[in-house]
Amino acid sequence: MQVKPIEWCDTTIRILDQTRLPSEVVFLEVADYVEMAAAIRGMRIRGAPAIGVAAAYGLALGAQAIEARTEEEFLVKLGTISRELASTRPTAINLFWALERMNRAAGEGFALRGSSPKGSTISEIKAVLVEEAKRIERENEEADRRIGRLGAELIEYGFTILTHCNAGALATAGYGTALGVIKAAHEQGKQIKVIACETRPLLQGARLTAWELVEEQIPVTLITDSMAGHFMNRGRIDCVIVGADRIARNGDVANKIGTYSVAVLARENSVPFYVAAPTSTIDLSVKSGAEIPIEERSPEEVTWIGLTRIAPEGVEVANPAFDVTPHQYVSAIITEKGVLKEPYEEGFEGFVLKTISQ
Amino acid sequence: MQVKPIEWCDTTIRILDQTRLPSEVVFLEVADYVEMAAAIRGMRIRGAPAIGVAAAYGLALGAQAIEARTEEEFLVKLGTISRELASTRPTAINLFWALERMNRAAGEGFALRGSSPKGSTISEIKAVLVEEAKRIERENEEADRRIGRLGAELIEYGFTILTHCNAGALATAGYGTALGVIKAAHEQGKQIKVIACETRPLLQGARLTAWELVEEQIPVTLITDSMAGHFMNRGRIDCVIVGADRIARNGDVANKIGTYSVAVLARENSVPFYVAAPTSTIDLSVKSGAEIPIEERSPEEVTWIGLTRIAPEGVEVANPAFDVTPHQYVSAIITEKGVLKEPYEEGFEGFVLKTISQ
Repeated sequence: MQVKPIEWCDTTIRILDQTRLPSEVVFLEVADYVEMAAAIRGMRIRGAPAIGVAAAYGLALGAQAIEARTEEEFLVKLGTISRELASTRPTAINLFWALERMNRAAGEGFALRGSSPKGSTISEIKAVLVEEAKRIERENEEADRRIGRLGAELIEYGFTILTHCNAGALATAGYGTALGVIKAAHEQGKQIKVIACETRPLLQGARLTAWELVEEQIPVTLITDSMAGHFMNRGRIDCVIVGADRIARNGDVANKIGTYSVAVLARENSVPFYVAAPTSTIDLSVKSGAEIPIEERSPEEVTWIGLTRIAPEGVEVANPAFDVTPHQYVSAIITEKGVLKEPYEEGFEGFVLKTISQ
Repeated sequence: MQVKPIEWCDTTIRILDQTRLPSEVVFLEVADYVEMAAAIRGMRIRGAPAIGVAAAYGLALGAQAIEARTEEEFLVKLGTISRELASTRPTAINLFWALERMNRAAGEGFALRGSSPKGSTISEIKAVLVEEAKRIERENEEADRRIGRLGAELIEYGFTILTHCNAGALATAGYGTALGVIKAAHEQGKQIKVIACETRPLLQGARLTAWELVEEQIPVTLITDSMAGHFMNRGRIDCVIVGADRIARNGDVANKIGTYSVAVLARENSVPFYVAAPTSTIDLSVKSGAEIPIEERSPEEVTWIGLTRIAPEGVEVANPAFDVTPHQYVSAIITEKGVLKEPYEEGFEGFVLKTISQ
């Protein structure tokens, strides 16, 4: 079964509410871009590539409702919607990358169609935006497949692979990045096993990764985040694969909080630590991880689980949603364009990537 | 306020049910040793020193109900109760240490009173056992106070101290070991702050440490276990202090799962990593941590939090309750007899400790 976390339905966008998994499989009909912004902010859809797709579809949906008499007016209104969608979450670069690509498509569309009557141009551009969002989703899925194929070459027969958070189909609206590699290795009959860190506070490992892998019938053992080091130290892990929310020019990787700890523990125990991410996750505009903004989320994500309060009233809470793993800890970065090793900057430049401005 | 997790009440033992904290402060009346064994197994009372005290009181309570006509019969029945109490949890050595000490007190008591009539000797030994359990509790508290005083010398003004799990008054039936050091530094006006790891799966950090520190008005920030590395890497932690469930002859430390990860991250970030524990936690009969049995607890501790199931049906779970931190990562071990550094074995031998046999 291929999980489909987001789907364009012409007048609405259908998303799988990931906050309800694994106990309930509930789909939401998103009727406008404001609802999409709320869904991204509330992590009903999450994962760096998936929120790029969600923002693109959200902008396409928002664009359909724009009433404008001139190109300029249309682009101003499109910019307003883009900023609303861009304000939802600060760390994953794919969000800004997708929105910039959508705006560029609109601008280029107007330039191409400059000679035709204004009214029809605007409706044409509305269609262009839907096509561009669909293309982003399709390219995402293709990138995932290539990442899976390239990454699977690093996986040997019988490997036990540790992963943190969820970088699966749910996170990418495709095949998955870290889980794409795992699925590809599994499909090749490599008899792999997965150890999934539960990934506090929002438990994406327990709720989403474990669910995806159980659905795919890939053997998975769930552990708390605090157990990862223990199992590495006991020789039970052959490699680690995680996704990424943003990769700096020097190869530093921002990813779900806890990733840095896993990377340090991996190196200490001579376990390879791989990052699987599409090139849309690479942000050449930031020199190192120190420049990547780290989202701070609400204390209640830590102090409550479901209906259970797990901490006393009055306690202070810190809740950074991401951390930065310095490039020195990263054994390789698996992208759809190839598997890179240090020095990462050279490899990234080889891709002739455009710098993303936020 | 001094938390009192266990209290001898002559015909019963009163324990604070730590599984109900922090939402409810509920005391249980333990009426016999079988109930005490269940309370230890179910972690209603937990923490290595505290389960030593609990086992001692449980044995004293069980002894009162023994009907025996001879010393031999009494000792056989005492042995049966001891084995039941010893079977509750495998890792913390204090449990076995306390039971052995109680049995030795009974044996020595009979030897001393050998000439008096049997009946009165048995009732005298029943009283001896109560006194011995009380002595264990009192010595525990005195050890904690000394650990606090000695450990506080390592804490500088304004330090932010990270701790994992709960090694407070709740864990020791005294003043606390790791939290004893923190409390002593706080009482000395050192303006310290604490970062408490929540300590999945059973959340002793969130539920117990945060609660104790809020009660003591010591500034505390709660984080998930996965955040410890991030805050060390950002230079936010000045030292780590944890307790211990068993320390091997070479200084390897078995403690709550996740401790090893914290220790590795501390060393990677040049943060001192201290272990605070009474000498009753040192087990000279095991050469290294590899010989310490690690308790595996039920999968439901990982897959459920309160009434919320957080993982899909059918997922495998691993749930080791402890891990081993190799001595190389331990900057110092703070005991009531002094602060030790490498080589630990020499320091331990200096204490002329007796080897505990299980």
